[in-house]
Amino acid sequence: MQKKQLVILGSTGSIGTQTLDIVRRYPDLYSVYALTANTSVDLLASQAREFNPAAVCIADESQYEPLCNALRDTDIKVWAGSQSIEHVVTAREADVIVAAMVGFAGLRPTIAAIQAGKTIALANKETLVVAGAIIEEMSLRHHAPIIPVDSEHSAVFQCLAGEDADAVEKILLTASGGPFRTFSKEQLRGVTAAEALRHPNWQMGAKITIDSATMMNKGFEVIEAKWLFGVRYDQIEVLVHPQSVVHSAVQFRDGSIKAQLGAPDMRLPILYALSYPDRLQTTLPRVDWLATASLTFEQADTERFPCLRLAYDAIARGGNMPCVLNAANEAANLAFREGRCAFTAIPEVIEQTMKKAAYLPAPSLDDLFASDSEARRIAASMLG
Amino acid sequence: MQKKQLVILGSTGSIGTQTLDIVRRYPDLYSVYALTANTSVDLLASQAREFNPAAVCIADESQYEPLCNALRDTDIKVWAGSQSIEHVVTAREADVIVAAMVGFAGLRPTIAAIQAGKTIALANKETLVVAGAIIEEMSLRHHAPIIPVDSEHSAVFQCLAGEDADAVEKILLTASGGPFRTFSKEQLRGVTAAEALRHPNWQMGAKITIDSATMMNKGFEVIEAKWLFGVRYDQIEVLVHPQSVVHSAVQFRDGSIKAQLGAPDMRLPILYALSYPDRLQTTLPRVDWLATASLTFEQADTERFPCLRLAYDAIARGGNMPCVLNAANEAANLAFREGRCAFTAIPEVIEQTMKKAAYLPAPSLDDLFASDSEARRIAASMLG
Repeated sequence: MQKKQLVILGSTGSIGTQTLDIVRRYPDLYSVYALTANTSVDLLASQAREFNPAAVCIADESQYEPLCNALRDTDIKVWAGSQSIEHVVTAREADVIVAAMVGFAGLRPTIAAIQAGKTIALANKETLVVAGAIIEEMSLRHHAPIIPVDSEHSAVFQCLAGEDADAVEKILLTASGGPFRTFSKEQLRGVTAAEALRHPNWQMGAKITIDSATMMNKGFEVIEAKWLFGVRYDQIEVLVHPQSVVHSAVQFRDGSIKAQLGAPDMRLPILYALSYPDRLQTTLPRVDWLATASLTFEQADTERFPCLRLAYDAIARGGNMPCVLNAANEAANLAFREGRCAFTAIPEVIEQTMKKAAYLPAPSLDDLFASDSEARRIAASMLG
Repeated sequence: MQKKQLVILGSTGSIGTQTLDIVRRYPDLYSVYALTANTSVDLLASQAREFNPAAVCIADESQYEPLCNALRDTDIKVWAGSQSIEHVVTAREADVIVAAMVGFAGLRPTIAAIQAGKTIALANKETLVVAGAIIEEMSLRHHAPIIPVDSEHSAVFQCLAGEDADAVEKILLTASGGPFRTFSKEQLRGVTAAEALRHPNWQMGAKITIDSATMMNKGFEVIEAKWLFGVRYDQIEVLVHPQSVVHSAVQFRDGSIKAQLGAPDMRLPILYALSYPDRLQTTLPRVDWLATASLTFEQADTERFPCLRLAYDAIARGGNMPCVLNAANEAANLAFREGRCAFTAIPEVIEQTMKKAAYLPAPSLDDLFASDSEARRIAASMLG
């Protein structure tokens, strides 16, 4: 495999730091061309010292000076502001863009990278949730392959290797069910952000951990899967599987199912996205079958977890509705983490926002940015 | 897909009749060039009337007259004797040879088909167990692909689609554990053939059902997997999985596992072998995930099921030892079904036969036929 130069968008986050762990393990295969972060200037600077990229970008312009100071004795270029991030992803030297920023902010740089024909290792969910139709078309037009990093989509992607896309009957996305899988509706009303942040199987960032607890995360994955794998949303089924050993599966038209399994370690799907179509030798943890005494499966309960139903509604309606869903969810997710709303208010705010926002059946990118702002305003007015 | 003409060796057995069910469902894709059977003349004649092959062969020459009479008013050619079976598999019109005969008798016609460069849908286990090294070399030399029909090997074959063979770390063969999975050594001593013939998940022929109860069937599959997939025997692990939903799996060097799952219906792997690399739309039963409440996995117990250990011993020693293992097992399996020996005597007879038979490190085909006869003589002397 030829050595690849990576741009890691969101290098100080959970996926970003784990991507750097991969780079650390395979110094002959991967190097870092650029690192970007939102505000975590200290960690970004220490990553830059270790991996010696050509450039670092900090989105928060007020952090430009501290970052410059921290890297004063290096020849690493320091940039600030979101424009500079869009610039760095298009650099000739960059082979693979790891899109690991959180939230809607990941959309613009990912689009810039696609337009530059780069290979995208996509961890940012919002890109496809908000703008799936546009991104899919762009990826084809600019020959910019999108390789999923999310464990579920990586599982489906792996199961589709060597298979004809026409032969897919159903995509089975597994869900851990989160920390409140067995909670009653009544119990859900009282849960705190601290409880919601204790995910049973995966170590992830705060925003996505809350999305896992509401199952909105799974709803987003349904929408992403539609665009990544070119299936209808009603071909995508969510299966609650609390052990998180089966990462997802594909059912083919002959009735055969292929599933991908592994230990719950994000470095495996990250590595696969970076090494695809090769598989590298790793010392990552293996599944211990005898410790894994029993794998169980349950239907997802959209009564207790209405966010999943709202995501299906949004993709069924199409247009800007997934964008509205995402914007309202970002607002409500943050409000819950800040103690400004109850756990069960999250889907209520999203549902109301979807009712109130203007519906655009075939939005442009500009329409989506406007729709995102409108939805945030509507949600904010409810969140007070 | 171009229409394929099949020769079905062993058409009256379990795999044979299910293969004909596939032909019945896809008349535009498959037709029957020839059917062969060992002794079941009535069923063979009625199959011939339904599927109108060019030829039928009956191995048992004493059944030639009755078969001719039964098909007197048709223009189907009738042949008898094992030589005629070797002849029919080499016919120019035959595209795929479904090798579904039981036991060592399947070896010669399968070899003839390979030498004629035919595609082999291989259900006969003994071919690769007895003569794996020779068959593997022949298959390559004559460009005669061998596609497994067994559900476990079909699962592995499906998991390897689109993957690099070098990336395989381990093959995980699942085993139901058979009807005596939970029996103590003491209980195993007293089991009858009637009990052993009640397999919990699969409907199969008598010989293979007994092999499942002793787990010799899984031992054979380990040996076959070594040859089919070009791995070392110590890369093959047997995992007891009583629900038979996971048909087998492959673990890759990055730690990722791909598993193939399905309802326990042999028509699925048979169809896959016939349609490969395509997958056809079927109405075969789908896995019901919500009925499949729990999938469990246990280590195989070679203390209670020594046949599995003997199979690993045989492939570790190599040469003619798997041939001796198979011959002794065929003799002991039959003796048990006829009430001439105890269930627990089966591995004892095999182990003693393996000790007493001459060891040939690099046997020719003729050596293997001689070794087979010698091992049967040794086993027979013990079985009285």
